[in-house]
Amino acid sequence: MKDAVFLRACRREPTPYTPVWLMRQAGRYMPEYRALRERVPFLTLCKSPELAAQVTVEAVERLGVDAAIIFADILLLLEPMGVGLEFSASDGPVIRRPLRSGADVDRLQENHPAETVPFVFEAVRRARASLASHIPLIGFSGAPFTLASYLIEGGSSRHYLATKRFMYTDPGAWHALMDRLVRVIVPYVNGQIAAGAQAVQLFDSWVGCLSPADYRTFLLPHMKTLFRAIAPGTPVIHFGTETAGLLECMAEAGGDVIGVDWRIDLDAAWQRVGFDRAVQGNLDPAVLFAPRAELRRQVARVLAAAAGRPGHIFNLGHGILPHTPVENVVALVEMVHEMSAQGATHQAAARDAPREEGS
Amino acid sequence: MKDAVFLRACRREPTPYTPVWLMRQAGRYMPEYRALRERVPFLTLCKSPELAAQVTVEAVERLGVDAAIIFADILLLLEPMGVGLEFSASDGPVIRRPLRSGADVDRLQENHPAETVPFVFEAVRRARASLASHIPLIGFSGAPFTLASYLIEGGSSRHYLATKRFMYTDPGAWHALMDRLVRVIVPYVNGQIAAGAQAVQLFDSWVGCLSPADYRTFLLPHMKTLFRAIAPGTPVIHFGTETAGLLECMAEAGGDVIGVDWRIDLDAAWQRVGFDRAVQGNLDPAVLFAPRAELRRQVARVLAAAAGRPGHIFNLGHGILPHTPVENVVALVEMVHEMSAQGATHQAAARDAPREEGS
Repeated sequence: MKDAVFLRACRREPTPYTPVWLMRQAGRYMPEYRALRERVPFLTLCKSPELAAQVTVEAVERLGVDAAIIFADILLLLEPMGVGLEFSASDGPVIRRPLRSGADVDRLQENHPAETVPFVFEAVRRARASLASHIPLIGFSGAPFTLASYLIEGGSSRHYLATKRFMYTDPGAWHALMDRLVRVIVPYVNGQIAAGAQAVQLFDSWVGCLSPADYRTFLLPHMKTLFRAIAPGTPVIHFGTETAGLLECMAEAGGDVIGVDWRIDLDAAWQRVGFDRAVQGNLDPAVLFAPRAELRRQVARVLAAAAGRPGHIFNLGHGILPHTPVENVVALVEMVHEMSAQGATHQAAARDAPREEGS
Repeated sequence: MKDAVFLRACRREPTPYTPVWLMRQAGRYMPEYRALRERVPFLTLCKSPELAAQVTVEAVERLGVDAAIIFADILLLLEPMGVGLEFSASDGPVIRRPLRSGADVDRLQENHPAETVPFVFEAVRRARASLASHIPLIGFSGAPFTLASYLIEGGSSRHYLATKRFMYTDPGAWHALMDRLVRVIVPYVNGQIAAGAQAVQLFDSWVGCLSPADYRTFLLPHMKTLFRAIAPGTPVIHFGTETAGLLECMAEAGGDVIGVDWRIDLDAAWQRVGFDRAVQGNLDPAVLFAPRAELRRQVARVLAAAAGRPGHIFNLGHGILPHTPVENVVALVEMVHEMSAQGATHQAAARDAPREEGS
């Protein structure tokens, strides 16, 4: 397992081909998943370790990816905090009692994830037991800002205005909220590692709405605390979207691997992140709707942008979109493996070829 | 007029203080505007040169900004193309017959803006006549990608998936669409200049959904054609959001001033854009909801990031949000003037101060 291609890439060690997995690789785009969801509501699925493990493993087998990610939702951790989280059938998650003040922050219930979300750890255990021994399992959590934005907005948002007003108007309550979220995320992530996850990803999906200055003022210290508290020896992927201007801040915050979305060239992103980190990304999920030749062209471009040094994990820049044709996802994984293995061969050949004097 | 502070900054000439104007400075946040809109529907307002000019001028007088921008909508240009554009009262703009194919592109009606939207040119003429002689008037147009995204999605969008599918699946039709849009934008922009605008802004508000590679493949040649065709001698502002990874592409496309949103530090952005251009931005519009002390701190930060060289126009990173307190907008404009004039004085003082040997 230690030598799994995905884990080698996390450690920036050479690999025979570029490892690939895809955010939301188990999801609505997949007929098997939709069939299951016709019988089982989303939250029931998340809370049934056997089913969550099954969905996790099936996606890997269907796609031939190099890592599994536990089937769960970043909001599961918020439900036991007493804010009235509901997953409605159509409208997505809704929080009935969003945070409006410091007093609301103080009222948040704070219990150990082992008590509140034991089903996630059990799903990790079962998925690990079912997965092939060479396939690493990724655990995950939402990052503090992204979780806070749900708690304050009460759902998804366009401008994150309530979140920013909260942050600007009552920085003391904001920092208290960050402290609390870090205190619950740490045991949640470490619990998944203890249960059998070989890597973890922190999803800061909505952090890209912040200016770098606000990131440094309102987030960076908490992110550093969080990264320092994650069990050492386990690679941590630090992911966000719309972060082309935040990559330096994110790298400073922490993470062995920095997730990059498609809004920046991957080579430029890697330079900003620093070559002492691995990178993950960064195909636009919309390209999975393109004709095969265009998909191939874009995969080649992403691979080329990362070529020349170890430490690239291929992924999309965000999750697979609903209605994505499954056959294109399968083709993408094959292309990444095939084209990167050829590239690796070419690079090896180039390395072995006699070099001209002075070159 | 030639020496107006805003125009000097566009040309990167020293100014006694940093000029400031604000996107959507005439809009829903302003009580005078809301009062007018209770009597007059949005489209009627856009098509009434006297009212559009009045709204344009009132905002300048209310706020004390250094430039006016003509009151109009980027979609006005699409209405005469025959796609069934409607501005509904609540849901925003809707296009009844969105583009689905190359044949749809061929069917687009293409007439000279002087025939289709003469009211915009007349509004420019009237606003120019009413404005104080030292206040430049900015004309504007949507840029090709942003206009195309409305034509294809039929409205606003989250993932721009229909637009990207169109682009990937039928690049020939896509390029034909870009050609057509450039052909109509050029006389629209030049017509506003001829009618009395001292500068123009191209709004590519949604271009940030593209990867830099897609920008180069599907957009860059058309943008270059567009910029080359704009009447020389008039400063052009090239604006987009979520463009931290696209700034180099945008600068290559063209523009004397590059608009920058808040998702990147302004000094980092200017470096990527190149110091041979002016920059405009980049306060997060949400900061206008912050307490006065936080607003002041953030204004100081933006000014400091641009300090040391001429060519900064202060603005938000995107339009003023609805419900923004007017008094905070007024305070912002005062702060920019006051703090940048002090900074300019300090800089002048520092320049004039005796320097130590060897420094």
